[in-house]
This record gives sequence, C-alpha cells and structure tokens, in this order.
Amino acid sequence: MPSYIAPTQDMAFLLHDVLKADQSDIPGYADLERDFTSAVLEEAGKVASEVLTPLNVVGDQEGCRLENGVVYTPTGFKGAFEQMKEGGWTGLDMPEEFGGQNMPVLLGTAVGEMFSAANQAFTMYQGLTHGAASAILAHGTDEQKATYLPKMVSCEWTGTMNLTEPHCGTDLGLMRTKAEPQDDGSYKVSGQKIFISAGDHDMSDNVIHLVLAKIPGGPEGIKGVSLFIVPKFNVNDDGSVGSRNGVSVGNIEKKMGIHGNSTCVMNYDEATGFLLGDMHKGMRAMFTMMNEARLGVAMQGLAQAEAAYQNAVIYAKDRLQGRDVTGTKNPDGPADPLIVHPDIRRSLMDQKSFCEGARAFLLWGAQLIDQAHRSEDKDADGLISLMTPVLKGFLTDQGYDMTVLAQQVYGGHGYIEEHGMSQFTRDARITQIYEGANGVQALDLVGRKLAADGGKPIMAFFEMIKDYCKDQSEDEAMTDFIEPLKTASKHLQASAMYFMQSAAKNPNNALSGSYDFMHLFGHVCLGFMWARQARAALDALATGEGDATFYETKLTTARYYMARRLPATSMHLARIESGADTVMALEADRF
Amino acid sequence: MPSYIAPTQDMAFLLHDVLKADQSDIPGYADLERDFTSAVLEEAGKVASEVLTPLNVVGDQEGCRLENGVVYTPTGFKGAFEQMKEGGWTGLDMPEEFGGQNMPVLLGTAVGEMFSAANQAFTMYQGLTHGAASAILAHGTDEQKATYLPKMVSCEWTGTMNLTEPHCGTDLGLMRTKAEPQDDGSYKVSGQKIFISAGDHDMSDNVIHLVLAKIPGGPEGIKGVSLFIVPKFNVNDDGSVGSRNGVSVGNIEKKMGIHGNSTCVMNYDEATGFLLGDMHKGMRAMFTMMNEARLGVAMQGLAQAEAAYQNAVIYAKDRLQGRDVTGTKNPDGPADPLIVHPDIRRSLMDQKSFCEGARAFLLWGAQLIDQAHRSEDKDADGLISLMTPVLKGFLTDQGYDMTVLAQQVYGGHGYIEEHGMSQFTRDARITQIYEGANGVQALDLVGRKLAADGGKPIMAFFEMIKDYCKDQSEDEAMTDFIEPLKTASKHLQASAMYFMQSAAKNPNNALSGSYDFMHLFGHVCLGFMWARQARAALDALATGEGDATFYETKLTTARYYMARRLPATSMHLARIESGADTVMALEADRF
Repeated sequence: MPSYIAPTQDMAFLLHDVLKADQSDIPGYADLERDFTSAVLEEAGKVASEVLTPLNVVGDQEGCRLENGVVYTPTGFKGAFEQMKEGGWTGLDMPEEFGGQNMPVLLGTAVGEMFSAANQAFTMYQGLTHGAASAILAHGTDEQKATYLPKMVSCEWTGTMNLTEPHCGTDLGLMRTKAEPQDDGSYKVSGQKIFISAGDHDMSDNVIHLVLAKIPGGPEGIKGVSLFIVPKFNVNDDGSVGSRNGVSVGNIEKKMGIHGNSTCVMNYDEATGFLLGDMHKGMRAMFTMMNEARLGVAMQGLAQAEAAYQNAVIYAKDRLQGRDVTGTKNPDGPADPLIVHPDIRRSLMDQKSFCEGARAFLLWGAQLIDQAHRSEDKDADGLISLMTPVLKGFLTDQGYDMTVLAQQVYGGHGYIEEHGMSQFTRDARITQIYEGANGVQALDLVGRKLAADGGKPIMAFFEMIKDYCKDQSEDEAMTDFIEPLKTASKHLQASAMYFMQSAAKNPNNALSGSYDFMHLFGHVCLGFMWARQARAALDALATGEGDATFYETKLTTARYYMARRLPATSMHLARIESGADTVMALEADRF
Repeated sequence: MPSYIAPTQDMAFLLHDVLKADQSDIPGYADLERDFTSAVLEEAGKVASEVLTPLNVVGDQEGCRLENGVVYTPTGFKGAFEQMKEGGWTGLDMPEEFGGQNMPVLLGTAVGEMFSAANQAFTMYQGLTHGAASAILAHGTDEQKATYLPKMVSCEWTGTMNLTEPHCGTDLGLMRTKAEPQDDGSYKVSGQKIFISAGDHDMSDNVIHLVLAKIPGGPEGIKGVSLFIVPKFNVNDDGSVGSRNGVSVGNIEKKMGIHGNSTCVMNYDEATGFLLGDMHKGMRAMFTMMNEARLGVAMQGLAQAEAAYQNAVIYAKDRLQGRDVTGTKNPDGPADPLIVHPDIRRSLMDQKSFCEGARAFLLWGAQLIDQAHRSEDKDADGLISLMTPVLKGFLTDQGYDMTVLAQQVYGGHGYIEEHGMSQFTRDARITQIYEGANGVQALDLVGRKLAADGGKPIMAFFEMIKDYCKDQSEDEAMTDFIEPLKTASKHLQASAMYFMQSAAKNPNNALSGSYDFMHLFGHVCLGFMWARQARAALDALATGEGDATFYETKLTTARYYMARRLPATSMHLARIESGADTVMALEADRF
C-alpha cells in the first residue's frame, strides 16, 4: 500500500526562506512564525499520514454506494471525518466568528496539499463544504451566515456546488433548472444536476446544496442565472435539522477515479431554496470564489504528483534490476536498485523538479490571494486572477503527467491495482476536467485575462520578471538560473505580442494557441519559482547555518528544471506562431 | 457506448499510394492488389465494428474471473472467439502449411489495428497465440511444429509468453524458475510467473505456455536461460488433449485496464515441458520475435488512439456548447457544436495527425519486416531493428497521450465510465509498459541499436532522409514539408553526434538523453511519413482522379504536423545536450 510523508521541510523553506511570509505586512502574516507554522504543518502531516493515507486505497476499492436513497461512504471515512472535525482542520482559514481559526489561505493551502495527497476523494468532502461556505460568507445575508456558517465551518453540515446539467457544463447559459418564487420569499427549485461531488453521504447531519437555477421571466442565457441555498433537510427556526426537502440522489456515477467521493446525480423536485446574493447574478457569485476554488484544484494536481513521486522513489531504491553501467553500486546484491539508471533518474528528477516548483508557485498564488483579500491589494488581485488559469491548467496537466511517470517506474507493478500507483493517475485525471476543463482555463487566460484591466496585470507580470532578472544578474552564482528564465520569458512575451498583432485579423489565431500559451506561461512561472528557490538556497548557504545538503539539492534541482524542463517554451512559441491556419482549415466532416 | 469504424480509406491510401505495396518485389506483395486488400480490409472492418466493438465495454465491466481454478472470460467473448476462428482471422499471416493464409505482415498489421482498436483485451488472446506460434515456427523441431502449429494457427489452442517473475521483469537474469532434465528428454518446470496475459481462459481446448526457465548447472544469469513449451494439458501421441499438466492459475490480477484479458499468476509445479530451440539460448529465441511483438504493441498504442479519436470527433460534432467567436455556426440551435472551438480543433488535429502519421510509420515498419524476412534483406532488417524501439516507445507514449486528449473533449462525461472514454486511456496505458517498458526501449535504442553493425543502420537512416529531402526539394509544392523535416532530422543527427562524442567520457550522457532521443526519433519518422503522404496526395491530385477532398485533407494534416508537432524536436535536442550532470548529481537519499 502506498505511503505518504508530508514534505514539511520543503514547505517551511518555501513559506519562510522564499516567500518570507512572516516578514510580510499582510494582516495575519505576522503570526506565521517558524515555530508556529512548523507545529501546524507537523500536526497536519501526522493526520495525513496516519489517518487519511490508509483510507485512500479503501475508498478506491469500495467506492460509495446508494441504497434506498441513502449514500454510504467507504469503511472508515466516517470515523476519519469525525477526527478532522475534532482536530479543527475543517475551518482552518475560516473566520473566527463562525468557529474557524482565521489562518491565511497560504497556510490553509499548505495543509490542504497534505490532505489531498493523502486522500483526494476524502478531502473533497470538506473542500466542497469550504467552497460553499465561502460563497455564503461572501454573498449571504447576516441571517444566512448565522444559520449555515457555524455548522459548515465545523463540517457538522457539508456543502456542494451544483452547476452542471446533462446537456450543459461549460455553457451554463443553457441551464434548465428552474426556481419559482414563492409568497414567503423562498423559491421552489426543480431540475436535474449532474457530477455533484460529495452530493450526498453519511458523514454529516445535513448537506447544504448551492444550486444555480433560472427564475422564470428573467433574462435569457447566462444573465438569467441565480444562486440558491437548498438544504437536504429544511432548517428549523431554532437552527435544528427539520423535515426532508425535495432533494434526492438519482444515482452515483461510476468514475475512472476518486471512487471514495460520491459524485451524484441530484434531482430537485420543488425543493425549497433561498436566493443567495442578487437575483440573476448567480454567475458573479460563483466567480468570486473561482480563484480560490481553482487554486484548490491546482493543489490537487500537485498533491497527487507528490504522493505518486514519493512512492516511485521508494520503489526505485528498493527494486533491484540491472546494473549501473558505470560500475556496480550494490556488489553484494543480485542487481543494483533502479535508481542507479539514468532514465529512472530522469523520470524522478522530472517529478521532483515539478513538485517543488509547483508547490512554490501554488503557495505564491495563495499568498497573492491573501494579499488581494486581506490587504485589499488590487495589483495582487489582478496578478492572481491572471495566473489562476495557469495554476489550474498547468499544474493539473503536468501533475497528471507526473503521476503517469511515477506509475511507469513500477513497470507492470504500476499497472496492477495492488500497489496503488494506478489510483494516483486515475484520481489526478479529474483535476484536468473539473472546476473548468483545462481548455476552458486556456480560453479564460487568453480570451479574458490577458486583456483584463487594459493588459495591466500581464504587463506587471513581465515587469516583475524583468526586474527580478536585472536585480539578480549582478550575482554570478545566479547566472545559470537567470539566463534560462530570461529566454523563457522572452518566448512568453513574443507569444503575447503575436496574439495582440494577429488576433485583430482573426481571433482564432490567439485561441488556437491558447493551450500552448497556458503551458508556456506555466513554465515561466515555475522557472521564476526555481530562480527564487535558488536565490533563497544561496542565501541560506551563505549563512553557514541549516541543512546545507537540502540547499545544495535545491540548487541541483533548479539547474535540472532550467536545463530539462524550461526548453519546452521554444516549442510552445513555435506552435503558437504557426497561427490558426492549419488548426481551422478542415471542414468538420473531414475529421 | 463507443463506436468504431475501420479507417479503410486511409489504410488503402497508405498501402497503395504511399508504400506502393503492390509494386514491391517482396515475395507475396504482388498479390496485394487494391481490390484484394480492399476486400480483406472491409471484411475485417466489419468484424471489428460489429463483433468486437460491442464486447469492449462488456469486457471492461465484467472482467475475467477465477472460480475453482477455472478462468472465465466475459460474456460474449467465447462466441466472438469462435467467429474469429471460423473467419480465418487468427492465421492471416501464418504459413499455409499450418493452416494460415500466408499474407504479409503488412496486411496482418492493418487488420490487427482494427481488431485492437475495437477490443484490445479480446484481441490479445489471439495476439499472444500468434507470438507463441511464431516462436515455435522459428525455433521448434519439425515434430513440435506439427504438434502445436496447426492448432495454434486456428486458435483451437492458444498460447502465452512467460517471462516475468515477482522479483524480475526487465532483468531476466535474476530468474528463479527451474527446469530439471528428465530421462525421456523432457523437463520438469517449477516456479512462479506473473503478468501472464491470456494466461488461462475458457475459449480454447488447450493453452500452450512458452516459459523461460533455468536448467540447473547452466551458466549464471541471462546466459543460462532456456525456453520451454509447457502445455496446460499434456498432448497425447495422436495429438489429442490428454491429462492435466502441473500448471495452475494462482490469481487473476486486478488491473487499471484490459480487464477482459486474464492477466494471470501462473504456478508451475513440476510441469512437463519441452525445450524449444537451443539450451541456454532462451533469450535469443525470444529476441527473434521481438521486432514483430513490439510492432504489435506499437499497433495497440495507435489503435487505442484511433478508437478514442473517432469517438471524440463524434462528440465534438454532437455536443452543443458555446458559440464560435467568429460567428455562430448553428444559429437555429441553442449553441454551436464543440468542433467550432479552436482549442477543440487543436486537440482533434493533434489526434488526427498522430493517428494517420503513426499508421504510416507502423505499416512502413511492417513492410520492412516483410522485406527483411521474405526478401532476406539485411539492410531492411537493420533498419527495422533500429526503429523497433522507436515504434514501440513513441507510438505507445503518444498513443496514450492522444487517448487522454480524446477523453478531455468529453469533459466530465469523459471521466465517468458510461461513455467508455476512460477505458481507452486505461487500456492504452499498458502498451507503454509491457513488451519492454518504454524506458527500456529507449535504452535498447541508444545503448544497443545506435551502435549496431558499426552504426550502419542509423547512417542509412540519415542517408535515406537526406536523399528523400534532396529529391523532393525540386518540387516547390513540397517545401512546406521538406524544410521542417530537414530541421528535425538535423536535430536528430546532432543528438546522435552528441551521444558519440560525450558517451566516451561518460556513458550516462547518452543514457540520460535516451528517452528524449526516442521521442525525437519518433517525430522525425512521423515527419518523414507525413512528407511521403503529402507527396502521394500531390501525385494523386495531379491525376485528377479519386477523392480530391481526401487528398487535400492529407495536405492540411501534413502541414499541421509540421507546424504543431514537429517543433518538439528542438526541445528534445536541448534536453539531450544538457547531458547527465543535473540528472545524476543527487545522492539517492536526496530524492
């Protein structure tokens, strides 16, 4: 069975040496001293390894089941969920007034990576609740907040997000679910929603569904969509759970992975619902949570890659097969361990350099969210909005690819379910799809975010990279990192320039290159993160204190990323600059 | 449920317009006239679509089961297997003297692609039999051939290949299975073999296991391995099936995919076996079939990509979501079909240009095998031996990636099992692993094939590409294809040059770049194949006959490959030229 050890040393390095969180003036960051974050991370890591990891395979093998309208989670999930509640892990970054601990998103993200790596399907139950609670926090009335938030922060009640319908996913304007206004101010919600993660289960007393629906007579399409709170059980005036509402589970989907999470078809039959936020502004209400929700999925992509990587390393050290061509490393054994072989190294270094680079990018993104919200910093908000599709699309695509690499290290043993490596790829696969499929992320990036605010965020991004490279170019020890970053950044600028010049002629020139642009952007961000990690490692080494081998390893891994991963940017640029002609040339019937 | 239509028009184009099979002087090729191949391909296509495709999902959902030592295949497999036997599909390219139809591997490969695309797990039963029969054909005594081949060619008896043991896959020198010589010239085989595809089942009267084992007292390691024929039921002198041999199924593995194939743990307990080929030369006996067997796996990689692509196209034309940004294409509907969107096109063109390029590469490879065997052409043998790891590694890696792209077109509907898109990726995944994991293919390519015969095959390859480019450069219509091919080929030559120069200093410099070299090589081959397809399309258009739209589509798809796929070669070169330093720098305990 796979194991997982939380990468707490790396997280501490990123929080303190790279992002210098405790020196930031973002409100609440002053509390993030090394001792404090270390205590939280170590404790969370223990929960991840000891409570959640052992249930990961159980969840995959058992799945959820629907019996007489009741959804049952896999063996052990209920007990573990109680432990999560009791440990206060469910409300880490929620406001104290509703029972949370008010920690920054930064720390919540680090902890979230651990839980997701240990058991993604399980962690989604509280992840969805967190998303729904955030929406109520942002858009709810005082009464709604008081009714729902304390119980959702504690996960006594869990939450869901209901967007997709059988005929519409990305294009929600086609939605058919209706909400009929009632005399008492409530609505009767009717329709079918599909792919509802954590849609129902046996681990909480109530499930608070947030449901997008149309109020009859409202504007056509997406502009007529509103958001509703629809509890599984109606809530009595005293806050207790009352009668059953008109919500039922039609089915649990059979999926490629995340079997431990109940992905439900939800049927609403005149269910009582309450408008959340403004009428017809349902999409806006959803969008305010988007950056954070998508960062959460990016985190899952990294998390699965990290968990798979750790197990690939264990196997590569343990499995004896073949001999080191430069000389035997295990003369007393029948063969050398896999890790002596260069191609196994190549695979492990791809994984390691991705995971640590991605973690830096993710935590930087979380810091920007805190800066945007806690410091009300508009520039930070612009930057994280720009980078959100990159975080989501790039980290989940690459994260998935890394789980495939990790599985490959096991050879045939990776293909059978016994070792759990197949589960990592099957679970990771969903991250490329949900919360906006990655093609939609690319469209959002190129079609919307590049031009946002007159292009201010993207110009600020380029300026930031340029300034950083200029600053660092005075230190010769940084040359190996700064030169490749400069080249990659130039490729990104050239792509953006190409889009600006060619899209006026034909918008498809930009859209045909959107996916490559998202990946090119991702590589520049990871290149930047590796340069910053190298800088922090050099600084730490200069002090002569701390774990020198750790810092040396950071420098080597940074060099690997620059030499072996960053060259992808020239390929993406070439593809982008080939424009839309060959992409769009064929008539549909020629496919 | 997914559908599949055999790409017979494309196959005919490749066989006749590109490879010009019927004009070749390879023995047997003169029979391959258009009418004949067309009749075979159409008929095989019908079997694939109507018999095998409907059972693909059934096999995935039911899997195989072991009850009281008996393996049962999924519902419908047995009947379909009878149809395959009755139709004579099992011995298409086997010698007539043993009941086969003596067709070239070229045609067998085209037909095999169809069957694998329709149902990989099912087709493996006959594929493994074909492999085992080929080994007996190449190395068996006349008596062994007479005993086993007629029944294996007809698939009355099926076959398996037993190499892997729990502690050794790639490194077969560590093997523990023993074969004790008996006074009557037979052997008693004892040991455990794992991952035995089609290891046992209920569709044939006997299973002929080919088992690698060590004869006690022989040379150490891989040089002491011999190959044995071990039938499930002993064969009586009159050729009928006799008593049960000491072979049993220990377990059926639970796997990520190909559930319809029984992947067995096989236990040999003093089972009666017969030496096949020379004592201690078991690996050589295996290797003679390697090119063909690996071509077969390359075929599976393409086949899954093709099947997945076809279904992605259907969905992209059917699913209405969003509007074409350049103007609505479906004004009367609520939205436009997915296929109007540039990023969906990008994905479909990636898939289409891969599938058709890969098919050309595969069939070219099959033609080379025929040339090597039927014409006893040593140059052809050298070339196909060089390209075999590229075919296997590149087509299965890319084939897998294409199934992931196809699945992605479905969004959330691709992740649930209902639409069958998950199965394509789960089934395709094994092709990267079995018959030599792709890292081992890369090692074989760089560590063995590049230097084979003093480098003659690789020099011949470069010469061939150079000559082709020179020939074609006189035709301006070919410039769009020849220039990119030249560039890509230069990258490949530069890589080979780097290996030669740097490997002397440190062999790890070459081995660290082996995987990238395999992919770079694959892109050059597909680039070459697209240039040749473009040439054939231009020639066909010049005649003014045939399906002009088909040929125009070929030219567009060729342009797409050159513009969007081939630029990967510069990235691979950059990685390769970065050498082993960053790959090998870390101590094992720093991972």
